[in-house]
Amino acid sequence: MNFMEKSIRLHEELNGKIEIRSKMEIKTKQDLSLLYTPGVAYSSLAIKDDPNQVYKLTGKNNMVAVISDGSAVLGLGNIGPLAAIPVMEGKCAIFKEFAGVNAIPIVLDTQDVNEIINTITHIAPSFGGINLEDISAPRCFEIETRLKGILDIPVFHDDQHGTAIACGAALINALKLVKKDLEKVQIVINGAGSAGCAITNFLLKLGAKNLMVCDKMGSLRSNDKSLNPYQTKLASLTNFDNKKETLQEAMIGADVFIGVSTGHIVSKSMVRSMNKDAIVFAMANPTPEINQEDAISGGARIYGAGLSNVPNQINNALVFPGIFKGALEARVKDITPEIEVAVCKAISEIIPEKDLREDYIIPSVFDERVSQQIVQTIIKDFGQKK
Amino acid sequence: MNFMEKSIRLHEELNGKIEIRSKMEIKTKQDLSLLYTPGVAYSSLAIKDDPNQVYKLTGKNNMVAVISDGSAVLGLGNIGPLAAIPVMEGKCAIFKEFAGVNAIPIVLDTQDVNEIINTITHIAPSFGGINLEDISAPRCFEIETRLKGILDIPVFHDDQHGTAIACGAALINALKLVKKDLEKVQIVINGAGSAGCAITNFLLKLGAKNLMVCDKMGSLRSNDKSLNPYQTKLASLTNFDNKKETLQEAMIGADVFIGVSTGHIVSKSMVRSMNKDAIVFAMANPTPEINQEDAISGGARIYGAGLSNVPNQINNALVFPGIFKGALEARVKDITPEIEVAVCKAISEIIPEKDLREDYIIPSVFDERVSQQIVQTIIKDFGQKK
Repeated sequence: MNFMEKSIRLHEELNGKIEIRSKMEIKTKQDLSLLYTPGVAYSSLAIKDDPNQVYKLTGKNNMVAVISDGSAVLGLGNIGPLAAIPVMEGKCAIFKEFAGVNAIPIVLDTQDVNEIINTITHIAPSFGGINLEDISAPRCFEIETRLKGILDIPVFHDDQHGTAIACGAALINALKLVKKDLEKVQIVINGAGSAGCAITNFLLKLGAKNLMVCDKMGSLRSNDKSLNPYQTKLASLTNFDNKKETLQEAMIGADVFIGVSTGHIVSKSMVRSMNKDAIVFAMANPTPEINQEDAISGGARIYGAGLSNVPNQINNALVFPGIFKGALEARVKDITPEIEVAVCKAISEIIPEKDLREDYIIPSVFDERVSQQIVQTIIKDFGQKK
Repeated sequence: MNFMEKSIRLHEELNGKIEIRSKMEIKTKQDLSLLYTPGVAYSSLAIKDDPNQVYKLTGKNNMVAVISDGSAVLGLGNIGPLAAIPVMEGKCAIFKEFAGVNAIPIVLDTQDVNEIINTITHIAPSFGGINLEDISAPRCFEIETRLKGILDIPVFHDDQHGTAIACGAALINALKLVKKDLEKVQIVINGAGSAGCAITNFLLKLGAKNLMVCDKMGSLRSNDKSLNPYQTKLASLTNFDNKKETLQEAMIGADVFIGVSTGHIVSKSMVRSMNKDAIVFAMANPTPEINQEDAISGGARIYGAGLSNVPNQINNALVFPGIFKGALEARVKDITPEIEVAVCKAISEIIPEKDLREDYIIPSVFDERVSQQIVQTIIKDFGQKK
């Protein structure tokens, strides 16, 4: 049985990767009358009198909705809501296994921005947080920004910020190892969708100064009328001289390549044109921009990718379970850029500097310290004063 | 510790009555790559190519949303979405414990009919069925009717139909015991909200001919301009002569009283005015229209109520777990009136006629045969031809 058959077979056997469990067996009339009517009325009335009690008397405090409109699922494109369910369920399973968060998949039959915002707003009281997922750019930016303004619970578009935080943590450690300074290195980012935009903004926030963002048409330029407003802003924050370069040209002399684009578009010789001690993060999914062997033989010193078959797996599964668990436990109303920076540093600091190696710049997604450290950081630095 | 304290304490300890579980542990990179990316892409693509595969490769086939806008929660009125969560969670726990159905609570921050319909339509692809709950009349009628027209999955407003089916099953058996004929008995229904309307329509469907529906203002009359259109229709189907009667007057000589109204409004002497072998179902929640002791000493031969502290508990918990499990397993697109009648008869037939007693006209909600019988009936009589 090949890998595809194995995965399909497993999905058939499970027939849903998650299930609901009642935390208590209901065996007697007494159980029923305490948990349900008439007893449940007392909890309902307590919440009516003091809405904050909902966090004590129900599971809202640990319940996240993983919401997608199916418009940009993995690298598969706009495959619609039903086809997105397996991915959302997988995410929910990871939420529980990696951080103990209850998460449920919600897929939407609309791709209209206003309808999506209305729908999520209307169902939000049920949840402690909203994880947006696999929504295409640039729609995802508006949806996230507006929902953050409307809702009083954390809203987090994982494809953007989860990826950016994981990438940032890997880069911080990679630069320690090659002894280069984030403020000085030249970084090329290929891909100007949700992940590319978020990574660029996040690296700027971390202190990077020299970035060039490329997409299919080469370097983003703020005077290019074909860009969307988010890309134009990105260009104005990075490509100050409006240089027009191909990806190949942009990579010459660069210290860092970060790919969130598509498979096989970086060649060995393009890596060879980079600066000494080059760092290559080829995060396209499911096929990276260049594979590890070619990148290393092209002269890269450090290689990372999104997939699990390489030593340095830079994947948002490092981030989303812990960041939501922390946000829920600390009861923050918003996952702010400051929280994201703190979480990024917490992840990178899990590996002491002396233990960093070319093939160990980022902890494994199975390293239990990851979500523990994230949760502790958020509670300590951003938790509500009791 | 009194009952109220016990129930609140239990809710605090549980901190949510349901939780999500991953059906498979995720311990290795292999697990992760089969369940999540890159392996999950094969299941997504299979569903994209054949949407029916979603029932095999995901949990949609056994996932129900329990949805409320908090406008009519138990007998507590319009207490809002947050205060409704404990009730919805309780329902979800019962769904799993009584019939193995995965159900999640969704409470809405809007009480606008169009917004509710849009929101539910947009999230529907995630689910195999929609259980509407605690939505006030007459809004609930329009919401249910329109959603049934829009969606291709079962939509069931439990407060209406679950209650009607349970009540019908109890009445069928009670009439067997007192040897009266449903077509001939005089039935008084008090309460013309969601449950009262549904019970009346359902008993008509079962064959009852002589009904009188009352509410706070006495008998419903089709020439009463203060009624909503649903009540007017009900009046035209029951009170043919537009008789104007108080509840007290209507009960004189009646064979059956069914209350889905409010506590303590039926007196011993009102029961005494009923026909011989009177049947009294006082289903108001949490306080019945008359308690068992008073009803019996007033001359009722059979007494039932919604609460769990009486022998004949007529509660929709008898119905909703099984009817959804059956609808999901048989993959029916709609829970039709025909299915409801069949389910009602299946419940009543669980008790053989020879075993019927005044205090045993309806099986216990803990009787495992109930949901089994319902599921078998739906699969056998209404299941899709394979």
